[in-house]
Formats: sequence, structure tokens, C-alpha cells
Amino acid sequence: MPCSIARPDQGIAAALRQRIDTKTKPVGALGRLESLALQIGLVQQSLNPVLRQPQMLVFAGDHGAARAGVSAYPQDVTWQMVENFLAGGAAINVFSRQMGMGLRVVDAGVAHDFGVRPGLIGAKIAPGTANYLEAPAMSASQRDASVARGRQIAHELAANGCNVVGFGEMGIGNTASASLLTHCLAGADLDTVIGRGTGLDDAGLARKRALLARAVARGGRCSDPLAALAEYGGFEIAMMAGAMLGGAEKGLLLLIDGFIVTSALLVAHALEPAILDYCIFAHRSQEPGHGLQLVHLGAEPLVELDLRLGEGTGAVLVYPLVQAAVNFLNEMASFESAGVAGRP
Amino acid sequence: MPCSIARPDQGIAAALRQRIDTKTKPVGALGRLESLALQIGLVQQSLNPVLRQPQMLVFAGDHGAARAGVSAYPQDVTWQMVENFLAGGAAINVFSRQMGMGLRVVDAGVAHDFGVRPGLIGAKIAPGTANYLEAPAMSASQRDASVARGRQIAHELAANGCNVVGFGEMGIGNTASASLLTHCLAGADLDTVIGRGTGLDDAGLARKRALLARAVARGGRCSDPLAALAEYGGFEIAMMAGAMLGGAEKGLLLLIDGFIVTSALLVAHALEPAILDYCIFAHRSQEPGHGLQLVHLGAEPLVELDLRLGEGTGAVLVYPLVQAAVNFLNEMASFESAGVAGRP
Repeated sequence: MPCSIARPDQGIAAALRQRIDTKTKPVGALGRLESLALQIGLVQQSLNPVLRQPQMLVFAGDHGAARAGVSAYPQDVTWQMVENFLAGGAAINVFSRQMGMGLRVVDAGVAHDFGVRPGLIGAKIAPGTANYLEAPAMSASQRDASVARGRQIAHELAANGCNVVGFGEMGIGNTASASLLTHCLAGADLDTVIGRGTGLDDAGLARKRALLARAVARGGRCSDPLAALAEYGGFEIAMMAGAMLGGAEKGLLLLIDGFIVTSALLVAHALEPAILDYCIFAHRSQEPGHGLQLVHLGAEPLVELDLRLGEGTGAVLVYPLVQAAVNFLNEMASFESAGVAGRP
Repeated sequence: MPCSIARPDQGIAAALRQRIDTKTKPVGALGRLESLALQIGLVQQSLNPVLRQPQMLVFAGDHGAARAGVSAYPQDVTWQMVENFLAGGAAINVFSRQMGMGLRVVDAGVAHDFGVRPGLIGAKIAPGTANYLEAPAMSASQRDASVARGRQIAHELAANGCNVVGFGEMGIGNTASASLLTHCLAGADLDTVIGRGTGLDDAGLARKRALLARAVARGGRCSDPLAALAEYGGFEIAMMAGAMLGGAEKGLLLLIDGFIVTSALLVAHALEPAILDYCIFAHRSQEPGHGLQLVHLGAEPLVELDLRLGEGTGAVLVYPLVQAAVNFLNEMASFESAGVAGRP
């Protein structure tokens, strides 16, 4: 999968900083929105950036290991929640409508036949991964197909004029998969990156820890991102990694949600470190491994709202802050234009 | 000023929690949005709360002490920035437009004649306060008139159907006034609540510290909120305190911005502690005294974006999160209605 992501040219940075600093406000007073405006201007190579056709993509997939008991919920909840997305009743629907973002669900590998449905991108690699307690979650060719399909989806968005995409996911068992990837790729001890997911009790958490330790005893702690992805990934995680790579290739802004989305980014980042310049980190999830992923990536998220829902809800909730960064840059008066005295 | 604020009746709390917990998400997974939904439901005494005619009020006033050098900017910037608000070019204009909030500027005591202007509420008590280095900032009758006028403004908003109001301010020198009020009312050492305001350098900060120590040496550390308000307040701060009291009396949600807005709330809270039930704390400002105010009030703000601009920018920036709390409560499907399996 040839893919090459370049850092945005920094030549425009000084002019962007000048534009930010002459707005009618004390220098630096808009805090994180100012660094966001600078980042967006750099990605778009523009002093007047524009957000076009903002799009949430929710990647769904099932996990063979879910049947071994790594989640508090039964595996059927994956397809049932996809139906909930398609019917408009989930949190991600409510928030995407509110924020004016488009929403499409990608069936990357759910163990259910949805047929052809409005709002659904059919991209099923297989009806769920294999159980990584017994064998690699997917074959190398399934992994490559997942990444390639994700990349294609992002390229199609870009071709249709979208320049900002938010990532979300659904898949019973996928915090377990994210924990294994984080253990492999972010230099973190396995126990520190295993959390309660959708709400395991103490006994459930202990069971999840024991199962994931068995998985690593079988498959090893792969340091190669593509090897780790095949060993422990989900189809939704692999396809997200591909869509992130494809999006950054096309200069899209990538809104990064929580623990599982960031596990896909760990793969993409290991392959193409410059992808970070395109990433806006939305929130710090309550899932403990997310904080460690963010430290590994040197990322500071915009907000911390104690979310742990997934679906991309954190990404869509911060979208107004992304808009605000663009809007102040484009719409605020300067000291000169407003006739306001600067500092003496 | 007779005013009595009651805590919302808690009888509806259990039904609200039940409604939140049966939505298609793990219990608690929407974190801060869930507590916000509960709070809003309690304030409105409704399982289906609605946000109506959201309004930002930016209170402006001048400070006699500004001419003594407590700010990095000249006093004329107050009226020049009010003109910028009226022309639509300031950060608060940009963000209010984006978030769909109305914006009105209240001239509580600016040293400038604006005439009658669209978007401006003329409520001038006097053209700036007296210099608290030499005498109380305002008389008892000026203070009472400020509070009464603020209360009236909030009552008028409520009468016109508004049920959520955000507070912002403009006034060169008003972080100094807020520091003195915080020292008096939040049990904080003076030096710990003095910051750089709009951007003082080290020498300017030292001068501000020395001036405010002189002010306290003259006027004392008043523990009575109304005495402290007259001694060190600004007209914009006093009028905000009145508007907060009047808003909570009418059951409005109050969006609390940063350091100066919270100094007004310290006064209102000392008079009517139950006002906190109506307050949504937007952000933690970079101004160091704000964190101490929040600790004093036992408040945890929604976000921390390193803002220190004032104008109400923090309050308006979190408004989409307030909307999101209401929207998920009203629009999300339940496990039962969506046909999603709950936890086994």
C-alpha cells in the first residue's frame, strides 16, 4: 500500500500567526483555539481556511474474541446498534444532526447482513474477525483489503469536496482489541491499557485481563504495526487506519475520537508519522489506555468530558470548537480595522 | 433588594436518571453531559427540557483604578471594544452568531456616550467607577441601582421567553476588581488571585500587586458581599450579579464564563447560595484566580481551553455542549425502543 504523507509546508505559519495576533483580543487570549486555527491554516495552506462537507464515519465490525467474554454486552449489540445508527436514534445521530455533520456508517465486518441501506457503506471484509485467543484476528490479505478500502473511502470523500472527517466506531469487544494494539505499539504494559470498556464489573475486568494476557502469550507483542493489526485488530480498526491515511494524503483534517479510534491512529502513525499534523484530538476518554496513547503521540486533546461511549461522539461534540477556530480567523476584526487602540 | 432563590425540587431527579440510563449507551458513558442533562431537567422541572431564545449579555463598565495603571491597555479600549461589539467584529460576536445565541451589550457604566444603538441596553449608572485606591468604587445607592437594573434586565429576558442566559463582560481594569472581590469573598490570599489580565509583563504585574495591596490597606478585606461590591466592584460586575440573581429567580439557566463573571457570582452566591443549582460553569480560565473561585464554589467547569479573553467567549463556546445534553435526553432511542439488547 504505497502511501506518502508530507508535513504541511510551514512557510505560511508566520503570516497565519500575524493574522491571529492582530485580531481584537490580547495576544494568545483564545488559547487552544489559536493553535487550532494555526493548524487548520497550515493543513489547508490558507489564511482563510474553510470547512467543507464535514463528515462523521462510524466504522463497525465484530470481534471473534467477543464470544470469549471480553465485553459486558453480547455480540449482537454490534448489529443492533448499527440498526440504531441507520434509524437515527443513537447518540452519534443526535450529535451529528446538531452539529451539521454528515454521518455514514461503514460495515467493515459486522456479523449480520444489512442489505443495501441508505447511510450505510457496505465494505464487509468478513462477518467478524477470528478469535485472537486461538489464531490471528485476520489474514494479511484481509488486513490489506481493510486498509485499502478505508483509504478508498477517504479518497471518495475528498473527491466529493469534504475536507474534514471525524472517526467513530462500533464493535462489541473492540476496547480489548484496542488494548492489545496499544500494548504493542505505544510501549505500554498490558494491564495499564485494559479498562472496563462498556462497563465491566471487577470480575469482568479480571476476566478480560486474563484473556488478553493469553492472547499476547499466543500472538506475541508485535512491534510492527501491520503485524499487530493482523494479529489483534478488528476490521473496523484496520479500515479506520486506512481512512486516516487516505484522508491525510488528501489534506483532510482528521477528528480523532477516543480509545479505539486512537488505536487505529497508532497503526497509521507508525506507518506515516506526519499524519499527526492533520489530526485534531477531540477528548480524553475515561478508558485508561486512551491517556497513554495520547502521551505516546504527544497529543493534547481539546476537552475532557468523562466520555466513554465511542461511536465518534467525542469527535462530533468538539466540532463547534473547530468551527470557532476557523470563524474567528475569518470573521474577527483587527485592532486596525475596528479602530481599537493596541497596547501602548 | 428582596430576592429569594429556591433549590429546584429534587422530586423529579429519579425519573430523570431513569430516562438518562435507559438510552442506548452504557450507563454513565456520556459523562459530563449526563450530569448536565440532569441539572437542566431539574432546573426546568421537566423530563423534556427545552432551550429557548438563548441570550448572551455582555456587561461593560469603566474602572477609576484603570487610570492608575492596573491594566496593559488604556481605558479607551473599553468603549472602543463596545463599538466593536456593536459592529459585530469581536470574538463574542463571531461565536454568538455561530452558536445561534442572541447578543446584547449592556452599558453599565462606560466612560463614553454611545447614544441609542441597536443591540445596546443603556443602563449606565455613571461614566466609570471611582478609583478604589482613594475611595469606595461606588456608593451604596449606585451599587443597589446596579444590582436592581441587572435583575430587571434578567426579568425582561425571562418575560420574553428566554430560558438560558450567558454572561460576559468588558471593562479595562476589571480583572483587578475581580481580584479584590475574590480576595474578600473566596478566602484567598490577595497575591494568589492577581494575574496578568490582558497580558501584563512582569513589571506590570508587580505594579498591579502593589496597587491592589494599597487598595486593601485603604478599604479593608470586606467579608460582606454588598460591602465588598461597593468598595471594589465595577458597575458591570454589580449589574451582572443582579442579573444572575434575577435570572435564577425566574428559573433561567446561567452560563458562567471566566474570572470576572465568576467574581460577580461570588457576590450573588454569598447572598443566595441556591443560585449554584442554576449555574453551568463553562471553562477554567488561564487567569489564576479563576481556579480558586471555582474551588470556593465547589464547581467543576466543562472545559479548559486556556482562554483568557473575557467577553463571555468561554460561555458561548460551550453552548453546543448544553444543547447536546438536552438533545440526547430528548432524541436518543432507549434500548427498548431501538430493539438493542441490554447487558445480560
